[in-house]
Amino acid sequence: MSDDTLFNPPRGMRDFYPADMVLRTFIFNAWHAAARAAGFEPYDASVVESLALLKRKSGEEIGDQLYTFADKSGRELALRAEMTPTLARMIIARQNELPLPLKWYTVAQCFRYERMSKGRKREHYQWNLDIVGEPAILAEAEIITTALRALYTMGLTPQDVRVHVNNRALMADIFLKLGIPAEHHAATFLALDKRGKIDDDAIRTILRDGGMDAVSIDNAFRVLGVHSIDEAETILGGPTPSSEALRSLLQLMDEYGMGGAVSFDIAVIRGLGYYTGIVFEGFDAGQSMRAIFGGGRYDNLLQSIGGKPATAVGMGFGDVVIGDLLTDRGLHTGTNHLCDFAVAFMTDDQRTAAVRVAGALRRHGHTVDLTLHSEKPKGFFARASRSSRAAIYLGPDDVTRGLLRIKNLEQRTEREYALADIIAGTAAVGEMLIPAPPCPPQ
Amino acid sequence: MSDDTLFNPPRGMRDFYPADMVLRTFIFNAWHAAARAAGFEPYDASVVESLALLKRKSGEEIGDQLYTFADKSGRELALRAEMTPTLARMIIARQNELPLPLKWYTVAQCFRYERMSKGRKREHYQWNLDIVGEPAILAEAEIITTALRALYTMGLTPQDVRVHVNNRALMADIFLKLGIPAEHHAATFLALDKRGKIDDDAIRTILRDGGMDAVSIDNAFRVLGVHSIDEAETILGGPTPSSEALRSLLQLMDEYGMGGAVSFDIAVIRGLGYYTGIVFEGFDAGQSMRAIFGGGRYDNLLQSIGGKPATAVGMGFGDVVIGDLLTDRGLHTGTNHLCDFAVAFMTDDQRTAAVRVAGALRRHGHTVDLTLHSEKPKGFFARASRSSRAAIYLGPDDVTRGLLRIKNLEQRTEREYALADIIAGTAAVGEMLIPAPPCPPQ
Repeated sequence: MSDDTLFNPPRGMRDFYPADMVLRTFIFNAWHAAARAAGFEPYDASVVESLALLKRKSGEEIGDQLYTFADKSGRELALRAEMTPTLARMIIARQNELPLPLKWYTVAQCFRYERMSKGRKREHYQWNLDIVGEPAILAEAEIITTALRALYTMGLTPQDVRVHVNNRALMADIFLKLGIPAEHHAATFLALDKRGKIDDDAIRTILRDGGMDAVSIDNAFRVLGVHSIDEAETILGGPTPSSEALRSLLQLMDEYGMGGAVSFDIAVIRGLGYYTGIVFEGFDAGQSMRAIFGGGRYDNLLQSIGGKPATAVGMGFGDVVIGDLLTDRGLHTGTNHLCDFAVAFMTDDQRTAAVRVAGALRRHGHTVDLTLHSEKPKGFFARASRSSRAAIYLGPDDVTRGLLRIKNLEQRTEREYALADIIAGTAAVGEMLIPAPPCPPQ
Repeated sequence: MSDDTLFNPPRGMRDFYPADMVLRTFIFNAWHAAARAAGFEPYDASVVESLALLKRKSGEEIGDQLYTFADKSGRELALRAEMTPTLARMIIARQNELPLPLKWYTVAQCFRYERMSKGRKREHYQWNLDIVGEPAILAEAEIITTALRALYTMGLTPQDVRVHVNNRALMADIFLKLGIPAEHHAATFLALDKRGKIDDDAIRTILRDGGMDAVSIDNAFRVLGVHSIDEAETILGGPTPSSEALRSLLQLMDEYGMGGAVSFDIAVIRGLGYYTGIVFEGFDAGQSMRAIFGGGRYDNLLQSIGGKPATAVGMGFGDVVIGDLLTDRGLHTGTNHLCDFAVAFMTDDQRTAAVRVAGALRRHGHTVDLTLHSEKPKGFFARASRSSRAAIYLGPDDVTRGLLRIKNLEQRTEREYALADIIAGTAAVGEMLIPAPPCPPQ
């Protein structure tokens, strides 16, 4: 392996230099804050899972895209491609003890071996929200509003993001009404979800090969022409529980004050086989219409991998699309976090004073970038203005006089303080700092 | 695979249920806060690294303990066992652009396939601090004081933790003085570091097999009898740069106000081959004397894997030993994070009001656990007292009267507010919350 390759991350994996961490932390903080505001509890697990678990859950292609390996006892392992199998395993392991409904969230790195393209990495971080054991439609509304709250915290507006909602149960009702037998529904969802990626003729071929007759295939496409819940109810001969679930969700979104962002869209199907009810996708409302997050209700997953039945609603929200979107919109400039104070000393005779000042400021809750060797003022102030909001430079006179000057590096003001007051923590140094942004949530 | 096994995490890996996240978040927050207070910048990378990189760096056994695998193009990959090779790779890749010295930190999950024993998992999270490109001993002092500050933030006292420091360069000086040739030094460090794990005769055998004569072996053991820097200087015939580096470090620790926690200990050697100067270990001062963190100066690593020479000091601090220690000492009780408010409704007729109240409180910065279905008061208040600091229960009368009551669940007080004021965000609801702990650092 050449050195050039050796010093890059493995193909498809990302490095996060400090400058890259600024955007990542901004996104993660918004995720954590929104999840906590809505009372979701954090959970996590190792990125390594047993291959048997992932295979039991995996539908559609994921199996081929796993990074798999064995430990030295021959156990077959894999890097998780999504968090849902892990979540299901953890709940099943304690299904008798955990009080339902539970509302859990995580920010988890997930791995998928795929062909590389723009925006397609082989790893990403995914924010997951799940509510398990709650049949009420309010669960869907909690999850969608929490995702939107995170986006609004990041600076996006209700005009920037659209949430499209659908109900697989409503589609199934229409399929049945139009004579498509239930055994073809799962395959039909999967095939129709490929619309836009492959052409309609190819979808027809898939459905025909699956044993559907030409009339059923025509009817399946006809369903995609339904543009409103009213239209769906006309086909169905009136309201059904599946249409009322959608109406109820839209009404709840209004009550949360976020109704304007949400609309019915029969084309939102979600590829994964395990969704059983409401499904939703959040889109960048700009030209690109990239999907930012997506999810839905899944009622059969826990039972299908060996647990007791439990209804659930979940959402996944990756860091790559939103990162690109924030950067494109100029909502994030990638500026480094600033320290409160940069501290330096001219000669080693002032080192002790500098160490004491830095130690005292840190003890009293400030962040301090201390230069670790004697430094000339010019180099120090150039660097300090990139790293910190205020600067303290200690020369021989300062230490002799027992005084120091704090320079505010943004407002170019300065003020003198007694060294002893700084060390005792009694100096009001806060006045020399531009007011800090509000305390970031963890 | 049986279902029982299927629902456990893979052997040696940990699950973090919400109750487990409390301790983990407590530890991580202290790490982040201490690193930021000292001006360290965050970085991160994928847990997947190229095997070639890890092999180039790995000394001593790590090579055998890697989880290795190949991607579908046959690239040899591995899960990182430590962060240092990744750090070195990232710096080398941009060695012409990155301004030195740099101070970086990360909290990274690392994997090592080892035999299981108490406190030995196959994965752990490790806090890393590294300063690259700074020869001054102040770099060592910054790292040790930052580690101590994290421990003090967690509630440990200067009496609870001891930091033992040594200097490999001082040992090498003494070895030379006692006639042990330089080519045997590396092997001697490694062998002496095994003291306590294997008996002294076995260490003698290792050294003899490595070609050392009996007198040199006796002298190597004699070095371990040196109990003070004074004694070392007596053997060396006076102060040396290596003894003065240690004295300087101890003095700096005093200036930081943390001198009492630190002492010279010639037995601290650190197994890893790459340390070249000061080495240190932080211990639980209780009976167990478990190592909590450790590190030292490594001057040759970047060059040895293909970069330009750069001096560096680094530290690793895992989450397992400190987690056990905090739990043993009763410094952490594992109490769940509380929400500000729990909100519930008696019948579906109050659902709209409950949703509006929860939405408004969240919009105004509060964390709210909203019950997602109508609920009887008894069950709600029992659950709310575990999840939240205050509770709002909406019955038909409340909505009719346009009023609601907030109950403080700790102080058992309650007070009435106008529903409209809550929704408008004008009600002073903060008075019904026990003052929250200070804003946790990210």
